[in-house]
Amino acid sequence: MKLIEDLNWRYATKRMTGETVPEEKLQNILEAIRLSASSMGFMPYNVLVIQDPEVRKKIQAAAYNQPQIVEASHLLIFAAWATLTDEQVDAYMNQIAQERGVDVSTLAGFADSLKGTINSRTAEENFQWAAKQSYIALGTGLVAAAAERVDATPMEGFDPAALDKVLGLAEKGLRSITIMALGYRDTEKDFLATAKKVRRSKKDLFLEIA
Amino acid sequence: MKLIEDLNWRYATKRMTGETVPEEKLQNILEAIRLSASSMGFMPYNVLVIQDPEVRKKIQAAAYNQPQIVEASHLLIFAAWATLTDEQVDAYMNQIAQERGVDVSTLAGFADSLKGTINSRTAEENFQWAAKQSYIALGTGLVAAAAERVDATPMEGFDPAALDKVLGLAEKGLRSITIMALGYRDTEKDFLATAKKVRRSKKDLFLEIA
Repeated sequence: MKLIEDLNWRYATKRMTGETVPEEKLQNILEAIRLSASSMGFMPYNVLVIQDPEVRKKIQAAAYNQPQIVEASHLLIFAAWATLTDEQVDAYMNQIAQERGVDVSTLAGFADSLKGTINSRTAEENFQWAAKQSYIALGTGLVAAAAERVDATPMEGFDPAALDKVLGLAEKGLRSITIMALGYRDTEKDFLATAKKVRRSKKDLFLEIA
Repeated sequence: MKLIEDLNWRYATKRMTGETVPEEKLQNILEAIRLSASSMGFMPYNVLVIQDPEVRKKIQAAAYNQPQIVEASHLLIFAAWATLTDEQVDAYMNQIAQERGVDVSTLAGFADSLKGTINSRTAEENFQWAAKQSYIALGTGLVAAAAERVDATPMEGFDPAALDKVLGLAEKGLRSITIMALGYRDTEKDFLATAKKVRRSKKDLFLEIA
């Protein structure tokens, strides 16, 4: 199964060469992220695509100076919606109605269910839920990058408040969750490039309940 | 790109036929989950694999009686570690040392960094972090199922406390996060089987910062 090969090939790349990811590969990775699963299809997040070296220097300062931030080709910043509202749900319902060619009133039950979920939670619970959804997209993007033989580093190691400030995320109603650096591994500088991948065994990870 | 085809093929299947997923396909999906990315490789979760019809009836009662719970071939329950401890980190370091053939003392910096991360957070923050890691595995598993043309339903719609009780998760140090039902779509009963997939547009989802 090619996916298993892809997953064995990938690792969290710590040093990159600076080589640019071709546009077609980047677009495939973005399209996979766009198509990734999301609870009720709601996708309560945005993804910032950043190539500018000056912006990346500022991001690096907010990310413990990790070298892959500036050695990557592109950075993807997964940012969850800070607040969830009925208006967002209505916009989503209007999109579904338009794309499926149905009247939006036929989606009233779905809309009420999604609004009910959101309104039954605190703002912080909604934000945590939105953040979790963005991890599904992160996971899908990592698989897509590996399928394209593009290296990727999923990163939580940064100061979210500082990164939000660099990118003006508060003004956009967003809060940074993870960074995915896309580029090419520097096998000479990255000791992990040749290290055996370690994962818990099937016996440890999976609990069989017949 | 086959991954894009796979993602367009999949959807959150609401009705399934009861047909059994062949063992080889199931094992490939589990292996993809096992290989999925995880912060620092720590994988602070387990996945329960459930086929027994009687157990699934009990799970269905804790999941608003959704039909795919019993119409699926298998259920995967993603369950995060309820508590994170130095001992778990030590066990992980011992595994790395053994598999990479190095002395565990060479991993002291890594161990301290992971323990420092865990010990700087509240128990609830650690649990939320563990839950988020399990969403990466969920996302990877959904891609793997689609690649095998096995339908999958990612589910948050259940009562976690009730499900934990059915499965005795507290005694295992686990808390349920999501369910993935694996099986085959019933295209006659599932109206979503023929509905157009709706995702936010690239323009809406991605914010380009040159």
